[in-house]
Amino acid sequence: MSPSAQTQVQADLERLLPLLESRYLLPFASGEAANLAEAMTYSLKAGGKRIRPVLCMLAAESVGADAESALGCAVALEYIHTYSLIHDDLPAMDDDDLRRGKPTCHIVFGEGQAILAGDGLLTEAFTFLAGDPALPPSRRVEALRVLGEAAGWQGMVGGQSLDLEGEQRTRSGEPVSLAQLQVIHRLKTGALLRASLELGAIAGNAGPEARAALRDAGAAMGLAFQIKDDLLDATATEAAMGKRVGKDQGKGKITYPLLLGLTGAQNALREATERALCLLQSLPNPQSLIQLATYLAERSA
Amino acid sequence: MSPSAQTQVQADLERLLPLLESRYLLPFASGEAANLAEAMTYSLKAGGKRIRPVLCMLAAESVGADAESALGCAVALEYIHTYSLIHDDLPAMDDDDLRRGKPTCHIVFGEGQAILAGDGLLTEAFTFLAGDPALPPSRRVEALRVLGEAAGWQGMVGGQSLDLEGEQRTRSGEPVSLAQLQVIHRLKTGALLRASLELGAIAGNAGPEARAALRDAGAAMGLAFQIKDDLLDATATEAAMGKRVGKDQGKGKITYPLLLGLTGAQNALREATERALCLLQSLPNPQSLIQLATYLAERSA
Repeated sequence: MSPSAQTQVQADLERLLPLLESRYLLPFASGEAANLAEAMTYSLKAGGKRIRPVLCMLAAESVGADAESALGCAVALEYIHTYSLIHDDLPAMDDDDLRRGKPTCHIVFGEGQAILAGDGLLTEAFTFLAGDPALPPSRRVEALRVLGEAAGWQGMVGGQSLDLEGEQRTRSGEPVSLAQLQVIHRLKTGALLRASLELGAIAGNAGPEARAALRDAGAAMGLAFQIKDDLLDATATEAAMGKRVGKDQGKGKITYPLLLGLTGAQNALREATERALCLLQSLPNPQSLIQLATYLAERSA
Repeated sequence: MSPSAQTQVQADLERLLPLLESRYLLPFASGEAANLAEAMTYSLKAGGKRIRPVLCMLAAESVGADAESALGCAVALEYIHTYSLIHDDLPAMDDDDLRRGKPTCHIVFGEGQAILAGDGLLTEAFTFLAGDPALPPSRRVEALRVLGEAAGWQGMVGGQSLDLEGEQRTRSGEPVSLAQLQVIHRLKTGALLRASLELGAIAGNAGPEARAALRDAGAAMGLAFQIKDDLLDATATEAAMGKRVGKDQGKGKITYPLLLGLTGAQNALREATERALCLLQSLPNPQSLIQLATYLAERSA
């Protein structure tokens, strides 16, 4: 990755993240349930890379719209991503006590409040977007439907369910195939990343061809992102990742490096990234999105 | 309650429930995550009284619209109610192993899949309503916003969080006041019942006055419903209720009979029901709704 591309990604993040954060951390303090509000805010503040909202806003810009038009969608995406992390970390799921370098939500607030904090964020994603004045109602219901399908039983939640089953099967000695792994990741992480770009297209009022290009590029980036995550988990250190690493294998989690070898996984990562870049080229203003896709494939932690 | 009123409630249920069930149990079979679909369907099929969707459809009829106009809202309400039961029953929350006479979702499918089944139903509620062709987009986003506010951190989820805290405080000997109990119930059960009638008003294209009357009647019915539930728990048998009874007290749960005595709670139930009936009288076609409100206040199990 060229230094100028990295500078561009940095500049985009510095421009878009304050816009995002100005909207999404404030409201919960006014609720009657103070502990719940604190748990929701804790997990949102824990940070992370804000990849989904940034992708969404850059997708809107790639079809010639303002980032502001996609802000409601961007906030909703980050709420949903954050809720999914809270629930994934629960003892009955991945049982993680460390996330983004901090104790996970249920460690700090207890399991019951963590389940509810996730439920609250998931619900607020739809509520916030339903009330977003930046989009006309017809585009708002379309965005809500696409977001819901990506996040729900046909998307992210379905993928998490299959992942949970796969881990149990692996622990009992049954092999998981590459085809099964691909379904799990297409649903578990792919669907919401794909939706991030498609929501940007809807918010930016893109035509059907640009919307399809963004949607398919999002799917390819979702795959690339997951392979990169597996590669980082297999090779990085805990301090650099801010979460337990090398844990995937210990828990019987099937990963791309495990199924394809390190070189095979690196090749699959490159192919998926090239597919995404090729699709993005067709858009009016794709430069920032292309540089972010490249950065994500080459990131070190 | 007069026999003719009871016959009317019965006739309304026989008319509306098949309409509802024709829409809401079928779709999940087509998903890639078979276990998740089974867990979601299991909890939906477990039955229950379908009070929220029926209230919603009757509210639409009370302002002169067809029940069909409110069907998307009705389905969404039942999905949200069902998800809330699945999550409430989890070991980290109320820890119930029996619901509607059957083992709870996490007993049958495990805790992880039960958390996900709840997440899937909550997400599908918004997805289904966002794609409901019976309502124009402007009324759809309004319904989604009202539903989300009632179900989320300012409503049902907030109430559940306060309830969880209240139980912990009671167990450690700290008293819970009537005012605190009222906040918990206004949020935990009241908000979604209030929304059931308000969504019927939105679906039925009610004017602002009729909508406010339905909303306020819903709030009063929500309070009445909760008091009645507490009274039934304090007096009914387990076989009649289909869930563990008398358990409220054992778990340190504060109830209306505990705070007001049996007679005081019965008086509060009557007052709330009368307030609801009085508000409903102002509507063009309130008869079925009035009879259902009366039935709910007088029901025996």
